[in-house]
Amino acid sequence: MTRILLHLHYAGTGFHGWQKQPHLETVQSILESAVGKIAGHSVEIIAAGRTDRGVHALGMAVHFDTTAKRPMHAWVAGVNTFLPRGISVCSAQEVAPSFHARFDAVSRSYRYVLSNQAIRPDILHGRVGWSFIPLNIPQMFQAAQMLLGTQDFSSFRSSECQAKSPIKHMYQADVYQADGMICFDFKASGFLHHMIRNIVGALIYVGSNKISIEQFQQIMDSRSRSIAPPTFMADGLYFTGVEYPEHCGIQPFRLPEWFWGKHQ
Amino acid sequence: MTRILLHLHYAGTGFHGWQKQPHLETVQSILESAVGKIAGHSVEIIAAGRTDRGVHALGMAVHFDTTAKRPMHAWVAGVNTFLPRGISVCSAQEVAPSFHARFDAVSRSYRYVLSNQAIRPDILHGRVGWSFIPLNIPQMFQAAQMLLGTQDFSSFRSSECQAKSPIKHMYQADVYQADGMICFDFKASGFLHHMIRNIVGALIYVGSNKISIEQFQQIMDSRSRSIAPPTFMADGLYFTGVEYPEHCGIQPFRLPEWFWGKHQ
Repeated sequence: MTRILLHLHYAGTGFHGWQKQPHLETVQSILESAVGKIAGHSVEIIAAGRTDRGVHALGMAVHFDTTAKRPMHAWVAGVNTFLPRGISVCSAQEVAPSFHARFDAVSRSYRYVLSNQAIRPDILHGRVGWSFIPLNIPQMFQAAQMLLGTQDFSSFRSSECQAKSPIKHMYQADVYQADGMICFDFKASGFLHHMIRNIVGALIYVGSNKISIEQFQQIMDSRSRSIAPPTFMADGLYFTGVEYPEHCGIQPFRLPEWFWGKHQ
Repeated sequence: MTRILLHLHYAGTGFHGWQKQPHLETVQSILESAVGKIAGHSVEIIAAGRTDRGVHALGMAVHFDTTAKRPMHAWVAGVNTFLPRGISVCSAQEVAPSFHARFDAVSRSYRYVLSNQAIRPDILHGRVGWSFIPLNIPQMFQAAQMLLGTQDFSSFRSSECQAKSPIKHMYQADVYQADGMICFDFKASGFLHHMIRNIVGALIYVGSNKISIEQFQQIMDSRSRSIAPPTFMADGLYFTGVEYPEHCGIQPFRLPEWFWGKHQ
Protein backbone atom coordinates (compact mmCIF):
# COMPACT_ATOMS: atom_id res chain seq x y z
CA MET A 1 0.00 0.00 0.00
CA THR A 2 1.37 3.41 -0.99
CA ARG A 3 0.03 6.75 0.25
CA ILE A 4 0.12 9.51 -2.37
CA LEU A 5 -0.27 13.25 -1.85
CA LEU A 6 -1.53 15.42 -4.71
CA HIS A 7 -1.66 19.20 -5.05
CA LEU A 8 -4.57 20.35 -7.18
CA HIS A 9 -6.22 23.45 -8.58
CA TYR A 10 -9.92 23.83 -9.09
CA ALA A 11 -12.42 26.53 -9.98
CA GLY A 12 -15.40 26.11 -7.65
CA THR A 13 -17.82 27.37 -10.31
CA GLY A 14 -19.72 24.43 -11.74
CA PHE A 15 -19.07 21.95 -8.93
CA HIS A 16 -21.07 21.41 -5.75
CA GLY A 17 -18.11 22.01 -3.45
CA TRP A 18 -15.49 19.49 -2.34
CA GLN A 19 -17.51 16.97 -0.32
CA LYS A 20 -19.12 13.89 -1.92
CA GLN A 21 -22.91 14.07 -2.04
CA PRO A 22 -25.39 11.72 -3.67
CA HIS A 23 -26.33 12.66 -7.28
CA LEU A 24 -24.17 15.83 -7.30
CA GLU A 25 -20.93 16.59 -9.14
CA THR A 26 -18.44 17.44 -6.42
CA VAL A 27 -14.67 17.85 -6.71
CA GLN A 28 -14.12 14.84 -4.43
CA SER A 29 -16.35 12.50 -6.45
CA ILE A 30 -14.90 13.60 -9.80
CA LEU A 31 -11.32 13.26 -8.52
CA GLU A 32 -11.96 9.84 -6.91
CA SER A 33 -13.33 8.60 -10.21
CA ALA A 34 -10.33 9.92 -12.22
CA VAL A 35 -7.71 8.62 -9.74
CA GLY A 36 -9.57 5.28 -9.60
CA LYS A 37 -9.10 4.88 -13.35
CA ILE A 38 -5.31 5.23 -13.03
CA ALA A 39 -5.14 3.11 -9.86
CA GLY A 40 -7.34 0.37 -11.28
CA HIS A 41 -9.28 0.20 -8.02
CA SER A 42 -11.62 2.52 -6.14
CA VAL A 43 -10.00 5.11 -3.86
CA GLU A 44 -11.07 7.40 -1.08
CA ILE A 45 -9.54 10.87 -1.20
CA ILE A 46 -9.10 13.11 1.83
CA ALA A 47 -8.46 16.85 1.45
CA ALA A 48 -6.73 19.36 3.72
CA GLY A 49 -9.85 21.53 3.60
CA ARG A 50 -13.40 20.95 2.43
CA THR A 51 -14.38 23.94 0.34
CA ASP A 52 -17.98 25.01 -0.27
CA ARG A 53 -19.77 25.40 -3.55
CA GLY A 54 -18.30 28.26 -5.62
CA VAL A 55 -15.03 28.38 -3.64
CA HIS A 56 -11.83 27.86 -5.64
CA ALA A 57 -8.55 26.20 -4.65
CA LEU A 58 -4.92 26.69 -5.64
CA GLY A 59 -2.67 23.94 -4.31
CA MET A 60 -5.27 22.00 -2.36
CA ALA A 61 -3.46 19.03 -0.74
CA VAL A 62 -5.21 15.65 -0.78
CA HIS A 63 -4.12 12.07 -0.06
CA PHE A 64 -5.21 8.55 -0.97
CA ASP A 65 -3.93 4.98 -0.68
CA THR A 66 -3.25 2.68 -3.60
CA THR A 67 -1.93 -0.82 -4.22
CA ALA A 68 -0.98 0.21 -7.78
CA LYS A 69 2.67 0.87 -8.67
CA ARG A 70 2.71 3.89 -10.98
CA PRO A 71 5.37 6.47 -11.86
CA MET A 72 4.57 9.77 -10.12
CA HIS A 73 3.75 11.54 -13.42
CA ALA A 74 0.89 9.06 -13.99
CA TRP A 75 -0.82 10.58 -10.92
CA VAL A 76 -0.48 14.02 -12.55
CA ALA A 77 -0.72 13.76 -16.36
CA GLY A 78 -2.62 10.45 -16.32
CA VAL A 79 -5.25 11.63 -13.82
CA ASN A 80 -5.59 14.95 -15.67
CA THR A 81 -6.71 13.16 -18.85
CA PHE A 82 -9.78 12.00 -16.90
CA LEU A 83 -10.57 15.35 -15.25
CA PRO A 84 -13.01 17.89 -16.69
CA ARG A 85 -12.08 21.52 -17.36
CA GLY A 86 -11.99 23.27 -14.01
CA ILE A 87 -9.99 20.69 -12.02
CA SER A 88 -6.36 19.68 -12.46
CA VAL A 89 -3.63 17.92 -10.52
CA CYS A 90 -0.36 19.87 -10.47
CA SER A 91 1.96 17.57 -8.51
CA ALA A 92 2.18 14.17 -6.85
CA GLN A 93 4.54 12.69 -4.25
CA GLU A 94 4.69 9.60 -2.08
CA VAL A 95 4.21 10.26 1.64
CA ALA A 96 4.50 8.17 4.78
CA PRO A 97 1.58 5.77 5.39
CA SER A 98 0.85 7.71 8.59
CA PHE A 99 0.55 11.10 6.83
CA HIS A 100 -2.94 12.62 6.84
CA ALA A 101 -3.77 15.64 4.60
CA ARG A 102 -6.39 16.92 7.02
CA PHE A 103 -5.20 16.00 10.51
CA ASP A 104 -1.51 16.81 9.98
CA ALA A 105 -2.18 20.32 8.67
CA VAL A 106 -0.90 22.98 11.06
CA SER A 107 -2.39 25.91 9.15
CA ARG A 108 -4.56 26.67 6.15
CA SER A 109 -4.60 29.86 4.07
CA TYR A 110 -7.33 31.55 2.10
CA ARG A 111 -7.43 34.69 -0.01
CA TYR A 112 -10.54 36.65 -0.88
CA VAL A 113 -10.15 38.67 -4.12
CA LEU A 114 -12.56 41.60 -4.35
CA SER A 115 -13.19 44.04 -7.17
CA ASN A 116 -14.03 47.48 -5.77
CA GLN A 117 -14.87 49.25 -9.05
CA ALA A 118 -18.18 50.90 -9.91
CA ILE A 119 -18.75 48.38 -12.71
CA ARG A 120 -19.43 44.69 -12.13
CA PRO A 121 -16.26 42.70 -12.99
CA ASP A 122 -18.08 40.59 -15.56
CA ILE A 123 -15.00 39.31 -17.39
CA LEU A 124 -14.09 37.55 -14.14
CA HIS A 125 -17.55 36.62 -12.97
CA GLY A 126 -17.50 33.72 -10.53
CA ARG A 127 -13.76 34.33 -9.94
CA VAL A 128 -13.81 37.56 -7.89
CA GLY A 129 -16.21 39.15 -5.44
CA TRP A 130 -17.59 42.65 -6.00
CA SER A 131 -18.49 45.66 -3.91
CA PHE A 132 -19.20 48.89 -5.81
CA ILE A 133 -19.25 50.98 -2.60
CA PRO A 134 -15.74 52.49 -2.23
CA LEU A 135 -14.03 50.76 0.68
CA ASN A 136 -11.56 52.20 3.17
CA ILE A 137 -8.67 49.71 3.16
CA PRO A 138 -6.72 50.98 6.23
CA GLN A 139 -9.95 50.82 8.28
CA MET A 140 -10.60 47.23 7.15
CA PHE A 141 -6.96 46.32 7.89
CA GLN A 142 -7.27 47.75 11.40
CA ALA A 143 -10.42 45.73 12.09
CA ALA A 144 -8.82 42.58 10.65
CA GLN A 145 -5.98 42.82 13.22
CA MET A 146 -8.57 42.12 15.95
CA LEU A 147 -8.95 38.63 14.53
CA LEU A 148 -5.33 37.65 15.29
CA GLY A 149 -4.42 35.12 17.97
CA THR A 150 -6.41 32.37 19.68
CA GLN A 151 -10.04 33.40 19.67
CA ASP A 152 -13.64 32.23 19.70
CA PHE A 153 -15.00 32.77 16.17
CA SER A 154 -18.65 31.87 16.92
CA SER A 155 -19.84 35.23 15.48
CA PHE A 156 -18.53 34.17 12.07
CA ARG A 157 -19.69 30.54 12.19
CA SER A 158 -22.60 29.28 10.10
CA SER A 159 -25.43 27.42 11.80
CA GLU A 160 -24.51 24.33 9.74
CA CYS A 161 -20.94 24.22 11.04
CA GLN A 162 -19.92 20.78 12.31
CA ALA A 163 -16.61 21.77 13.94
CA LYS A 164 -16.16 20.59 17.53
CA SER A 165 -14.88 23.94 18.75
CA PRO A 166 -15.29 27.56 17.57
CA ILE A 167 -11.81 28.38 18.90
CA LYS A 168 -9.10 28.79 16.26
CA HIS A 169 -5.71 30.46 16.11
CA MET A 170 -5.48 33.20 13.45
CA TYR A 171 -1.86 33.72 12.33
CA GLN A 172 -2.46 36.28 9.57
CA ALA A 173 -5.29 38.66 8.64
CA ASP A 174 -4.20 41.12 5.94
CA VAL A 175 -6.16 43.53 3.79
CA TYR A 176 -4.33 45.24 0.90
CA GLN A 177 -4.68 46.54 -2.62
CA ALA A 178 -2.93 44.59 -5.40
CA ASP A 179 -3.30 44.52 -9.17
CA GLY A 180 -6.49 46.58 -9.08
CA MET A 181 -8.15 44.25 -6.58
CA ILE A 182 -8.57 44.30 -2.80
CA CYS A 183 -7.12 41.11 -1.31
CA PHE A 184 -7.97 39.68 2.11
CA ASP A 185 -5.39 37.07 3.24
CA PHE A 186 -6.11 34.78 6.17
CA LYS A 187 -4.00 32.05 7.71
CA ALA A 188 -5.32 30.11 10.69
CA SER A 189 -5.04 26.75 12.45
CA GLY A 190 -8.43 26.02 10.89
CA PHE A 191 -11.59 27.71 9.71
CA LEU A 192 -15.26 27.27 10.66
CA HIS A 193 -18.00 26.84 8.06
CA HIS A 194 -18.53 30.14 6.16
CA MET A 195 -16.03 31.83 8.51
CA ILE A 196 -14.10 33.78 5.85
CA ARG A 197 -17.20 34.82 3.89
CA ASN A 198 -18.71 36.04 7.18
CA ILE A 199 -15.53 37.88 8.19
CA VAL A 200 -15.19 39.48 4.72
CA GLY A 201 -18.86 40.52 4.89
CA ALA A 202 -18.23 42.22 8.25
CA LEU A 203 -14.97 43.86 7.07
CA ILE A 204 -16.79 45.28 4.04
CA TYR A 205 -19.31 46.81 6.47
CA VAL A 206 -16.35 48.40 8.31
CA GLY A 207 -14.80 49.60 5.03
CA SER A 208 -18.04 51.24 3.91
CA ASN A 209 -18.70 52.79 7.34
CA LYS A 210 -21.85 50.77 7.97
CA ILE A 211 -20.28 49.68 11.25
CA SER A 212 -17.36 51.08 13.22
CA ILE A 213 -14.19 49.24 14.21
CA GLU A 214 -15.57 49.19 17.77
CA GLN A 215 -18.77 47.53 16.55
CA PHE A 216 -16.66 44.96 14.68
CA GLN A 217 -14.98 44.15 17.99
CA GLN A 218 -18.38 43.94 19.70
CA ILE A 219 -19.60 41.49 17.04
CA MET A 220 -16.49 39.38 17.67
CA ASP A 221 -16.98 39.54 21.46
CA SER A 222 -20.69 38.69 21.27
CA ARG A 223 -19.87 35.16 20.03
CA SER A 224 -23.21 35.24 18.28
CA ARG A 225 -24.02 35.20 14.58
CA SER A 226 -27.22 37.17 15.19
CA ILE A 227 -25.73 40.68 15.21
CA ALA A 228 -23.07 40.04 12.53
CA PRO A 229 -23.44 41.26 8.91
CA PRO A 230 -24.57 38.73 6.26
CA THR A 231 -22.37 36.11 4.59
CA PHE A 232 -20.56 37.53 1.56
CA MET A 233 -20.65 35.85 -1.89
CA ALA A 234 -18.40 32.81 -2.48
CA ASP A 235 -17.12 34.04 -5.88
CA GLY A 236 -13.81 35.60 -4.81
CA LEU A 237 -12.74 32.99 -2.25
CA TYR A 238 -9.64 30.88 -2.89
CA PHE A 239 -8.00 28.20 -0.77
CA THR A 240 -4.33 29.22 -1.17
CA GLY A 241 -2.30 26.75 0.83
CA VAL A 242 -1.78 24.40 3.73
CA GLU A 243 1.26 23.88 5.95
CA TYR A 244 2.49 20.58 7.33
CA PRO A 245 5.23 19.95 9.91
CA GLU A 246 8.66 19.84 8.27
CA HIS A 247 9.18 16.14 9.08
CA CYS A 248 6.31 15.26 6.68
CA GLY A 249 8.61 16.32 3.81
CA ILE A 250 5.84 17.90 1.74
CA GLN A 251 7.04 19.79 -1.36
CA PRO A 252 6.18 23.47 -1.04
CA PHE A 253 3.42 24.79 -3.28
CA ARG A 254 3.77 28.28 -4.77
CA LEU A 255 0.89 30.44 -5.95
CA PRO A 256 1.01 31.10 -9.72
CA GLU A 257 2.33 34.46 -10.87
CA TRP A 258 -0.90 35.42 -12.61
CA PHE A 259 -2.87 35.27 -9.37
CA TRP A 260 -3.98 38.58 -7.85
CA GLY A 261 -2.04 39.68 -4.79
CA LYS A 262 1.22 38.02 -5.75
CA HIS A 263 2.79 37.60 -2.32
CA GLN A 264 2.88 34.05 -0.91
CA MET B 1 -33.21 61.47 -31.95
CA THR B 2 -30.06 61.05 -29.86
CA ARG B 3 -27.14 58.80 -30.71
CA ILE B 4 -25.49 57.16 -27.68
CA LEU B 5 -22.14 55.42 -27.48
CA LEU B 6 -21.57 52.78 -24.79
CA HIS B 7 -18.37 51.05 -23.70
CA LEU B 8 -19.00 47.54 -22.45
CA HIS B 9 -17.23 44.50 -21.03
CA TYR B 10 -18.27 40.96 -21.69
CA ALA B 11 -16.98 37.45 -21.13
CA GLY B 12 -17.57 35.49 -24.33
CA THR B 13 -18.09 32.25 -22.40
CA GLY B 14 -21.79 31.43 -22.36
CA PHE B 15 -22.87 33.64 -25.28
CA HIS B 16 -22.96 32.82 -28.97
CA GLY B 17 -20.71 35.69 -29.99
CA TRP B 18 -21.74 39.29 -30.71
CA GLN B 19 -23.97 38.98 -33.77
CA LYS B 20 -27.75 38.45 -33.49
CA GLN B 21 -28.86 34.97 -34.58
CA PRO B 22 -32.29 33.37 -34.41
CA HIS B 23 -32.94 31.39 -31.20
CA LEU B 24 -29.44 31.98 -29.79
CA GLU B 25 -28.30 34.15 -26.88
CA THR B 26 -25.84 36.61 -28.36
CA VAL B 27 -24.35 39.70 -26.77
CA GLN B 28 -26.10 41.93 -29.31
CA SER B 29 -29.57 40.47 -28.72
CA ILE B 30 -29.20 40.54 -24.92
CA LEU B 31 -27.92 44.13 -24.99
CA GLU B 32 -30.63 45.33 -27.41
CA SER B 33 -33.27 43.88 -25.11
CA ALA B 34 -31.78 45.56 -21.99
CA VAL B 35 -31.25 48.95 -23.68
CA GLY B 36 -34.78 48.72 -25.14
CA LYS B 37 -36.21 48.47 -21.63
CA ILE B 38 -34.55 51.74 -20.60
CA ALA B 39 -35.34 53.46 -23.93
CA GLY B 40 -38.96 52.32 -23.94
CA HIS B 41 -38.67 51.39 -27.61
CA SER B 42 -36.76 48.79 -29.61
CA VAL B 43 -33.21 49.67 -30.61
CA GLU B 44 -30.63 48.40 -33.02
CA ILE B 45 -27.08 48.31 -31.65
CA ILE B 46 -23.95 48.47 -33.79
CA ALA B 47 -20.54 47.42 -32.43
CA ALA B 48 -17.02 48.45 -33.40
CA GLY B 49 -16.14 44.76 -33.83
CA ARG B 50 -18.21 41.59 -34.07
CA THR B 51 -16.54 39.05 -31.81
CA ASP B 52 -16.97 35.29 -32.20
CA ARG B 53 -18.27 32.81 -29.70
CA GLY B 54 -15.95 32.50 -26.70
CA VAL B 55 -14.12 35.78 -27.40
CA HIS B 56 -14.18 38.40 -24.62
CA ALA B 57 -14.26 42.19 -24.81
CA LEU B 58 -12.98 45.00 -22.61
CA GLY B 59 -14.26 48.39 -23.67
CA MET B 60 -16.18 47.29 -26.76
CA ALA B 61 -17.69 50.48 -28.29
CA VAL B 62 -21.28 50.30 -29.56
CA HIS B 63 -23.86 52.88 -30.64
CA PHE B 64 -27.64 53.15 -30.91
CA ASP B 65 -30.30 55.79 -31.54
CA THR B 66 -33.06 56.70 -29.13
CA THR B 67 -35.95 59.14 -28.88
CA ALA B 68 -35.88 58.79 -25.08
CA LYS B 69 -34.41 61.54 -22.91
CA ARG B 70 -32.47 59.85 -20.13
CA PRO B 71 -29.61 60.97 -17.89
CA MET B 72 -26.37 59.28 -19.02
CA HIS B 73 -26.14 57.11 -15.89
CA ALA B 74 -29.46 55.46 -16.84
CA TRP B 75 -27.67 54.02 -19.90
CA VAL B 76 -25.04 52.55 -17.54
CA ALA B 77 -26.58 51.59 -14.19
CA GLY B 78 -30.12 51.25 -15.57
CA VAL B 79 -29.14 49.01 -18.48
CA ASN B 80 -26.90 46.96 -16.16
CA THR B 81 -29.87 45.99 -14.00
CA PHE B 82 -31.28 44.17 -17.05
CA LEU B 83 -28.03 42.48 -18.10
CA PRO B 84 -27.04 38.94 -17.04
CA ARG B 85 -23.74 38.14 -15.32
CA GLY B 86 -21.05 38.26 -17.99
CA ILE B 87 -22.03 41.52 -19.72
CA SER B 88 -21.90 45.06 -18.34
CA VAL B 89 -21.94 48.61 -19.60
CA CYS B 90 -19.11 50.72 -18.15
CA SER B 91 -19.76 54.15 -19.66
CA ALA B 92 -22.17 56.11 -21.86
CA GLN B 93 -21.86 59.37 -23.78
CA GLU B 94 -23.85 61.25 -26.40
CA VAL B 95 -22.21 61.37 -29.83
CA ALA B 96 -22.95 63.19 -33.10
CA PRO B 97 -25.84 61.71 -35.13
CA SER B 98 -23.31 60.98 -37.89
CA PHE B 99 -20.98 58.96 -35.64
CA HIS B 100 -20.75 55.25 -36.47
CA ALA B 101 -19.09 52.78 -34.03
CA ARG B 102 -18.00 50.48 -36.84
CA PHE B 103 -17.29 52.68 -39.86
CA ASP B 104 -15.55 55.51 -37.97
CA ALA B 105 -13.09 53.18 -36.22
CA VAL B 106 -9.52 53.75 -37.42
CA SER B 107 -8.02 50.82 -35.53
CA ARG B 108 -9.03 47.93 -33.32
CA SER B 109 -6.90 46.14 -30.73
CA TYR B 110 -6.94 42.59 -29.46
CA ARG B 111 -4.86 40.75 -26.86
CA TYR B 112 -4.41 37.01 -26.65
CA VAL B 113 -3.56 35.82 -23.10
CA LEU B 114 -1.82 32.43 -23.04
CA SER B 115 -0.78 30.26 -20.13
CA ASN B 116 2.46 28.43 -20.94
CA GLN B 117 2.68 26.25 -17.82
CA ALA B 118 2.80 22.45 -17.75
CA ILE B 119 -0.53 22.36 -15.89
CA ARG B 120 -3.85 23.38 -17.46
CA PRO B 121 -4.86 26.82 -16.06
CA ASP B 122 -8.16 25.49 -14.75
CA ILE B 123 -8.89 28.33 -12.35
CA LEU B 124 -9.10 30.58 -15.43
CA HIS B 125 -10.68 28.14 -17.84
CA GLY B 126 -12.43 29.90 -20.70
CA ARG B 127 -10.47 33.10 -19.88
CA VAL B 128 -6.96 32.20 -21.08
CA GLY B 129 -5.53 29.95 -23.78
CA TRP B 130 -3.06 27.19 -22.96
CA SER B 131 0.00 25.63 -24.52
CA PHE B 132 2.02 23.27 -22.30
CA ILE B 133 4.91 23.08 -24.82
CA PRO B 134 7.51 25.65 -23.68
CA LEU B 135 7.47 28.53 -26.17
CA ASN B 136 10.37 30.69 -27.34
CA ILE B 137 9.09 34.25 -26.92
CA PRO B 138 11.87 36.15 -28.82
CA GLN B 139 11.34 33.81 -31.79
CA MET B 140 7.56 34.44 -31.76
CA PHE B 141 8.19 38.18 -31.44
CA GLN B 142 10.49 38.13 -34.46
CA ALA B 143 7.91 36.29 -36.58
CA ALA B 144 5.16 38.68 -35.41
CA GLN B 145 7.14 41.65 -36.77
CA MET B 146 6.57 40.26 -40.29
CA LEU B 147 2.88 41.04 -39.86
CA LEU B 148 3.44 44.81 -39.58
CA GLY B 149 2.37 47.22 -42.30
CA THR B 150 -0.18 46.96 -45.12
CA GLN B 151 -0.44 43.31 -46.09
CA ASP B 152 -2.66 40.62 -47.55
CA PHE B 153 -3.77 38.41 -44.64
CA SER B 154 -5.51 35.71 -46.74
CA SER B 155 -3.39 32.98 -45.08
CA PHE B 156 -5.01 33.81 -41.75
CA ARG B 157 -8.57 34.28 -43.01
CA SER B 158 -11.31 31.74 -42.32
CA SER B 159 -13.34 30.37 -45.25
CA GLU B 160 -16.44 31.99 -43.71
CA CYS B 161 -14.95 35.51 -43.75
CA GLN B 162 -17.26 38.08 -45.33
CA ALA B 163 -14.77 40.96 -45.53
CA LYS B 164 -14.51 42.63 -48.93
CA SER B 165 -10.72 42.70 -48.90
CA PRO B 166 -8.02 40.58 -47.17
CA ILE B 167 -5.73 43.62 -47.06
CA LYS B 168 -5.35 45.30 -43.66
CA HIS B 169 -2.80 47.58 -42.03
CA MET B 170 -1.16 46.08 -38.92
CA TYR B 171 0.09 48.82 -36.57
CA GLN B 172 1.28 46.63 -33.69
CA ALA B 173 2.18 42.95 -33.25
CA ASP B 174 3.84 42.32 -29.87
CA VAL B 175 4.63 39.13 -28.00
CA TYR B 176 5.80 39.41 -24.39
CA GLN B 177 5.68 37.79 -20.98
CA ALA B 178 3.63 39.52 -18.28
CA ASP B 179 2.23 38.40 -14.95
CA GLY B 180 3.05 34.76 -15.62
CA MET B 181 1.24 34.78 -18.97
CA ILE B 182 2.39 35.23 -22.56
CA CYS B 183 0.51 38.13 -24.16
CA PHE B 184 0.08 38.71 -27.89
CA ASP B 185 -1.03 42.31 -28.66
CA PHE B 186 -2.34 43.26 -32.09
CA LYS B 187 -3.56 46.58 -33.40
CA ALA B 188 -4.77 46.86 -37.00
CA SER B 189 -7.07 48.86 -39.24
CA GLY B 190 -9.34 45.81 -39.08
CA PHE B 191 -9.26 42.06 -38.68
CA LEU B 192 -10.52 39.21 -40.85
CA HIS B 193 -12.64 36.37 -39.48
CA HIS B 194 -10.51 34.13 -37.18
CA MET B 195 -7.43 36.18 -38.15
CA ILE B 196 -5.96 36.50 -34.65
CA ARG B 197 -6.66 32.92 -33.66
CA ASN B 198 -5.00 31.81 -36.90
CA ILE B 199 -1.99 34.10 -36.36
CA VAL B 200 -1.60 32.98 -32.72
CA GLY B 201 -1.81 29.34 -33.87
CA ALA B 202 1.00 29.96 -36.37
CA LEU B 203 3.12 31.92 -33.85
CA ILE B 204 2.80 29.04 -31.36
CA TYR B 205 4.14 26.74 -34.09
CA VAL B 206 7.11 29.12 -34.46
CA GLY B 207 7.59 29.28 -30.66
CA SER B 208 7.64 25.48 -30.36
CA ASN B 209 9.94 25.02 -33.40
CA LYS B 210 7.31 23.20 -35.44
CA ILE B 211 7.92 25.76 -38.19
CA SER B 212 10.77 28.21 -38.75
CA ILE B 213 10.49 31.99 -39.00
CA GLU B 214 11.15 31.57 -42.74
CA GLN B 215 8.22 29.14 -43.03
CA PHE B 216 6.03 31.65 -41.16
CA GLN B 217 6.94 34.21 -43.83
CA GLN B 218 6.21 31.66 -46.58
CA ILE B 219 2.77 30.98 -45.08
CA MET B 220 2.11 34.73 -45.06
CA ASP B 221 3.34 35.08 -48.68
CA SER B 222 1.31 32.09 -49.92
CA ARG B 223 -1.97 33.99 -49.28
CA SER B 224 -3.56 30.61 -48.75
CA ARG B 225 -5.06 29.09 -45.62
CA SER B 226 -4.16 25.59 -46.82
CA ILE B 227 -0.55 25.48 -45.58
CA ALA B 228 -1.12 27.50 -42.38
CA PRO B 229 -1.33 25.87 -38.90
CA PRO B 230 -4.80 25.31 -37.39
CA THR B 231 -6.97 27.97 -35.70
CA PHE B 232 -6.10 28.33 -32.01
CA MET B 233 -8.76 28.14 -29.23
CA ALA B 234 -10.91 31.25 -28.60
CA ASP B 235 -10.51 31.13 -24.80
CA GLY B 236 -7.72 33.69 -24.33
CA LEU B 237 -8.82 36.24 -26.92
CA TYR B 238 -9.91 39.72 -25.77
CA PHE B 239 -11.05 42.74 -27.77
CA THR B 240 -9.10 45.48 -25.96
CA GLY B 241 -9.97 48.72 -27.67
CA VAL B 242 -10.94 50.78 -30.66
CA GLU B 243 -9.67 54.16 -31.81
CA TYR B 244 -11.75 56.92 -33.41
CA PRO B 245 -10.57 60.17 -35.00
CA GLU B 246 -10.09 62.88 -32.37
CA HIS B 247 -12.93 65.03 -33.76
CA CYS B 248 -15.44 62.32 -32.70
CA GLY B 249 -14.71 63.29 -29.08
CA ILE B 250 -14.87 59.73 -27.72
CA GLN B 251 -13.83 59.33 -24.08
CA PRO B 252 -10.73 57.14 -23.86
CA PHE B 253 -11.20 53.68 -22.42
CA ARG B 254 -8.46 52.24 -20.19
CA LEU B 255 -7.86 48.55 -19.58
CA PRO B 256 -8.47 47.56 -15.95
CA GLU B 257 -5.42 47.12 -13.72
CA TRP B 258 -6.20 43.48 -12.97
CA PHE B 259 -5.91 42.49 -16.62
CA TRP B 260 -2.84 40.50 -17.67
CA GLY B 261 -0.24 42.45 -19.60
CA LYS B 262 -0.95 45.82 -18.04
CA HIS B 263 0.29 48.12 -20.78
CA GLN B 264 -2.35 49.92 -22.80
